Amino acid sequence: MTIRYPNGNAYQAPATSAGPKFPSTYTNYGKRGMTLEEELNESNTYYEVTGQAVVHKKPTPIKIVKVDYPKRSAAVIKEAYFSTASTTDYNGVYQGHYLDFDAKETRNKSAFPLKNFHQHQIDHMRACSAQGGICFAIIKFVTRQEVFLYRATDLYAFWDAQQRGGRKSIPYADIAAKGIRLTAELQLPIPYLKAVDQLL
Amino acid sequence: MTIRYPNGNAYQAPATSAGPKFPSTYTNYGKRGMTLEEELNESNTYYEVTGQAVVHKKPTPIKIVKVDYPKRSAAVIKEAYFSTASTTDYNGVYQGHYLDFDAKETRNKSAFPLKNFHQHQIDHMRACSAQGGICFAIIKFVTRQEVFLYRATDLYAFWDAQQRGGRKSIPYADIAAKGIRLTAELQLPIPYLKAVDQLL
Repeated sequence: MTIRYPNGNAYQAPATSAGPKFPSTYTNYGKRGMTLEEELNESNTYYEVTGQAVVHKKPTPIKIVKVDYPKRSAAVIKEAYFSTASTTDYNGVYQGHYLDFDAKETRNKSAFPLKNFHQHQIDHMRACSAQGGICFAIIKFVTRQEVFLYRATDLYAFWDAQQRGGRKSIPYADIAAKGIRLTAELQLPIPYLKAVDQLL
Repeated sequence: MTIRYPNGNAYQAPATSAGPKFPSTYTNYGKRGMTLEEELNESNTYYEVTGQAVVHKKPTPIKIVKVDYPKRSAAVIKEAYFSTASTTDYNGVYQGHYLDFDAKETRNKSAFPLKNFHQHQIDHMRACSAQGGICFAIIKFVTRQEVFLYRATDLYAFWDAQQRGGRKSIPYADIAAKGIRLTAELQLPIPYLKAVDQLL
């Protein structure tokens, strides 16, 4: 089975008969330079290669305005704009369960600003929850180097309170108390499936 | 709850208290000019507005090479290329079930050419099936104006046979016999959830 990295390149298993194993670059799981998206992509690739789940980040939606078709070569997009996604960024399937989540990072130490979410993302998660999907946010406090899985239901509570004039952020203490801390493991920068098991 | 069309525009419910209802343009469900993608997008919007399922088409993956940031206006992508998706185009959640499918159309009357699928799409569906997802193809015979839901397991059989030197297409007769015919309904160009019920 061909597993592809998010950049489209095929995953090449090393020449060994000892089952799935990551290339040596994957041992750099703890390097601080990785973005949250890169960490999740690596985790998703690991989960898929090892047959634990199939979760992908959706491509960034682009509104294409102008495309050139040069002779004998690929079409070139000459004018396009970033558009707003109508869903969350990640979804997939894990042991028969539909997973749906978004990943957000903040440099704020004491709270997670709710402006990182958009109304349509909250609406989308609510609709998925109503269909029996497992919805959550993965929140990274960059300066603390801490990552949490935070349940969508806890997020909705703060979101709705904000709309009634409540606070515009979720305190770090709340996320640390109700969320599930995700600590990097070998080959798995963000082992979120373990936390998902606690939501089932 | 804000429902958005795939183009990002918000769905505007007509001024009525009689529950979800589509704007009058939606009664043109049978018009022959719609592409399969448009028909599925309309069906998905209808399913979501009526609370039956949450299924979206993934954005087309684009490899961005050059972006300009003009002052006081939005970033403009100046050079980009279409890249190959590593998954199928559609996924979502329906009554707790993970759905994953691709939609393909052919003008061929007597058979569906397997070259419409790529190895990575088949691999992706197999991986999703292994996780308990419901996988299938929606196949439209454009000249016949017939649409079928065709089970992934039936597709795999032809795909694998092709790789052993077998035929390069699935006969129309096979799809008509094993597939589930989808006939347009009011406001629902492709009522595929009914067929999904038969797969559960």
